[in-house]
Amino acid sequence: MNAFSHNSHYSTASAIALTANVVAFPPIRRADPAPEPVDTSIVIDGEVIATDDRGNPLDGGPLDAAENSEEPGDTAPEDSAPDAKPVELPASAMVDRAALTKAFDIVKRVVERRSTVPILSNAMLAANGESIAITATDLDKEIRVTVPAAIDAHFATTVPAHMLETFLKKAAKGDFVALNTHPSIDAATVEFERVKYRLNTLPVADFPMLTAGEFPHRFTMSGKEFWSMVDGTRCAVSTEETRYYLNGIFMHVLELGNRNVLRLVATDGHRLYMQETTAPDGAGPDMGGRGGGDFMPGAIIPRGTIELVYALTKGKACPDSIDVAVSDRYVEFAFDNVKIVSKLIDGTFPDYQRVIPTGNDKVATFDAAEMLEAVESVSLISHERGRAAKFTLEDGQCVLSVNNPDSGSATATIACRFKGQGDEPVSVEIGFNTGYLKSLLGDAAPDGGEIIGEFSDAGSPTVFRGTREGWTGVLMPMRV
Amino acid sequence: MNAFSHNSHYSTASAIALTANVVAFPPIRRADPAPEPVDTSIVIDGEVIATDDRGNPLDGGPLDAAENSEEPGDTAPEDSAPDAKPVELPASAMVDRAALTKAFDIVKRVVERRSTVPILSNAMLAANGESIAITATDLDKEIRVTVPAAIDAHFATTVPAHMLETFLKKAAKGDFVALNTHPSIDAATVEFERVKYRLNTLPVADFPMLTAGEFPHRFTMSGKEFWSMVDGTRCAVSTEETRYYLNGIFMHVLELGNRNVLRLVATDGHRLYMQETTAPDGAGPDMGGRGGGDFMPGAIIPRGTIELVYALTKGKACPDSIDVAVSDRYVEFAFDNVKIVSKLIDGTFPDYQRVIPTGNDKVATFDAAEMLEAVESVSLISHERGRAAKFTLEDGQCVLSVNNPDSGSATATIACRFKGQGDEPVSVEIGFNTGYLKSLLGDAAPDGGEIIGEFSDAGSPTVFRGTREGWTGVLMPMRV
Repeated sequence: MNAFSHNSHYSTASAIALTANVVAFPPIRRADPAPEPVDTSIVIDGEVIATDDRGNPLDGGPLDAAENSEEPGDTAPEDSAPDAKPVELPASAMVDRAALTKAFDIVKRVVERRSTVPILSNAMLAANGESIAITATDLDKEIRVTVPAAIDAHFATTVPAHMLETFLKKAAKGDFVALNTHPSIDAATVEFERVKYRLNTLPVADFPMLTAGEFPHRFTMSGKEFWSMVDGTRCAVSTEETRYYLNGIFMHVLELGNRNVLRLVATDGHRLYMQETTAPDGAGPDMGGRGGGDFMPGAIIPRGTIELVYALTKGKACPDSIDVAVSDRYVEFAFDNVKIVSKLIDGTFPDYQRVIPTGNDKVATFDAAEMLEAVESVSLISHERGRAAKFTLEDGQCVLSVNNPDSGSATATIACRFKGQGDEPVSVEIGFNTGYLKSLLGDAAPDGGEIIGEFSDAGSPTVFRGTREGWTGVLMPMRV
Repeated sequence: MNAFSHNSHYSTASAIALTANVVAFPPIRRADPAPEPVDTSIVIDGEVIATDDRGNPLDGGPLDAAENSEEPGDTAPEDSAPDAKPVELPASAMVDRAALTKAFDIVKRVVERRSTVPILSNAMLAANGESIAITATDLDKEIRVTVPAAIDAHFATTVPAHMLETFLKKAAKGDFVALNTHPSIDAATVEFERVKYRLNTLPVADFPMLTAGEFPHRFTMSGKEFWSMVDGTRCAVSTEETRYYLNGIFMHVLELGNRNVLRLVATDGHRLYMQETTAPDGAGPDMGGRGGGDFMPGAIIPRGTIELVYALTKGKACPDSIDVAVSDRYVEFAFDNVKIVSKLIDGTFPDYQRVIPTGNDKVATFDAAEMLEAVESVSLISHERGRAAKFTLEDGQCVLSVNNPDSGSATATIACRFKGQGDEPVSVEIGFNTGYLKSLLGDAAPDGGEIIGEFSDAGSPTVFRGTREGWTGVLMPMRV
């Protein structure tokens, strides 16, 4: 937290000093004594920061305080407070530019660039106490990032998210940003050292917020482990909208032997990826009691939400831990200063276990990097995506070949052990989609190493396992 | 040059050794004794490397040996040798992969990805002596790169340029590439250590080549200086096809005082950039004699050719020197192992000197970087491209402002000296296209520093000069 944020009534003079040479700050309405919170507030995380004009808290606002909603899961700004008015008091906040830039870089991922609903292009800024909460939504999921700020009065407004993000990234100089709301003219100003922007705002009462209700199941995992599980399954998620129940990762808990296992599964009908780990406390029964006696219900987390969490927890951004909460219709992810609430896909994930063959008795062992290089090399001759390559497996070598009548052909050969159950030599000629196989090799062995493929015949699914712990991949062959 | 390329009859065994473990080389037809050059050759740079089936050299082939062509400037493969046949002998070449990759990376810039004329997707490979010449054309310009190679027989063929470039960049391992032509089946093979490609070829006799004829004017410049001159003018080249004579840089020589000056000029009607330097030997009269007594004719070099030369001589790729040759209809650029021949734009460049105002008496001086930052900051509020910013200039400061009714407004202020001819204070309020101004600031002062703007009034063109030597920019104002 920055030094300035401890003093929420920072002197107006010090704010002006930042820009005195060039752009004069607008007069800041001093909030001393501060207005009654109940008069100027919407409720965010339990704090009231906006009310309607009768002094009642606005409905449809809070993420965590919506237990009183009759229909959790509906976004209901219109039918809850038709005559709601936003905060009417001008107010100011000083924020560290780097922190605010990072926050907008995160929330903008949920904001469509060109939405037909204007308010969905905006992010909600709610200043409260010593922080500003920035919220964005696409009606299916909602993200909130909280950053420290020096505030002279509680306020809430909505501003164009991508535009403000651009200002924060690109505007001329200035380590701090002064945000000023002017509700009477539906505008906010954003001031850097040499530049001042005035932005049109939209009423905060119109901002649709998800009312997720209570989450009966909660568990915490290492950020790295959760990211890795998503990393091992996300590529197999279907993008085909007709089978909408495959457009996400199926997260569920099951009893396997004498332990409870948390499993993520994704399939697009051509391949299936499965990643499991010991179920954390809270996800299954008798594993710590927090989850009660029931297993967490199976949840299909939509692809968009998966990709959002994946991107925000990748590499250096990976948090130490991530809190996951699940209800029948919602999932919540919380880490660092970020909270994401998303609807689940309302459907039944197919009985995927039937797809995984158990009797494949011909086993190939090869090096992931060598195979990847060979697949990439032969697929260069393909014009269209999804062109198949033929794999001729014998004990000793695997020959890959691709034929493209338009341009020519390619062959590559790599070393490979290939054994059946008995002593007799075995061979298989089988076709795979090179795009799927490339992706699978990287997913099965992200750091390289040996891959094991279990084959039956040219028409049957093949099971792959690599160096990624707890991971199984199934790939359907193609006719070649 | 690599060691292997000194021995054009390298042993077949050593070539096979490279890949013996995996892919066997095809049998190489030993060209010992070598076939008569006159039987197997197209003429490239004076050497005959392809003939028609009556033993006469194929027409429409050579770049430099076309003086006998009746109509220099036409691409004439069809009407010159209708029954021409390509070289019929299988042949092989070994090439250093890095050198060949670099060469294809260069020639592919001239090859359209999806051409309606199949042969234009191909590059011509002509192996001769100790090198392979790789030629590509788009009918308006032609590029040739020569790389050393070990060759067992002269040959010429054409292969898909982008595909081969992809193989060279991405195929599995191998420091060398073996190229083998199989004219009888219209195919060539390309072999790396573990992968082998077979590519369909097209007859070399169908490959259209420019016949530029003689170049009466030739001069040589430092690569860096020529690149910098292009760098200072290319951004103002028009992309509007209706005024085709503005779609290039006008290069010409003129007498200025008692010296000859080489000048590049470009304009798109909204701005004009001019860059000049002392004319090198060969470009003007009496400056060394090579150009004879005449000035080099003014040449409009098409944008595509300009961008090609610019890209190939940028940064680390910049050659020590560049040879420029000009005729009435063609221009040639030669540097390192690259030669580019291009048609000129057949039109008259307008009398640009009338556009440059000489009586602008109000002079503003400001810092390029500060102005650039301010222009970029205020233009962030603009939605559409080309939105104007208003500049209010007074002695002491320049205030920039942009108003976007959809989203808001932005203002920025920077320091600026502003003086008229007399002692009275002057001020100007003028609008500029922020996109053009941003580009101009970078072009006028690529390394920063002071910029001088000469203003008349809000409706008149403004002249800018920066730290780039010999450079002048003129910018038309916009109404604001």
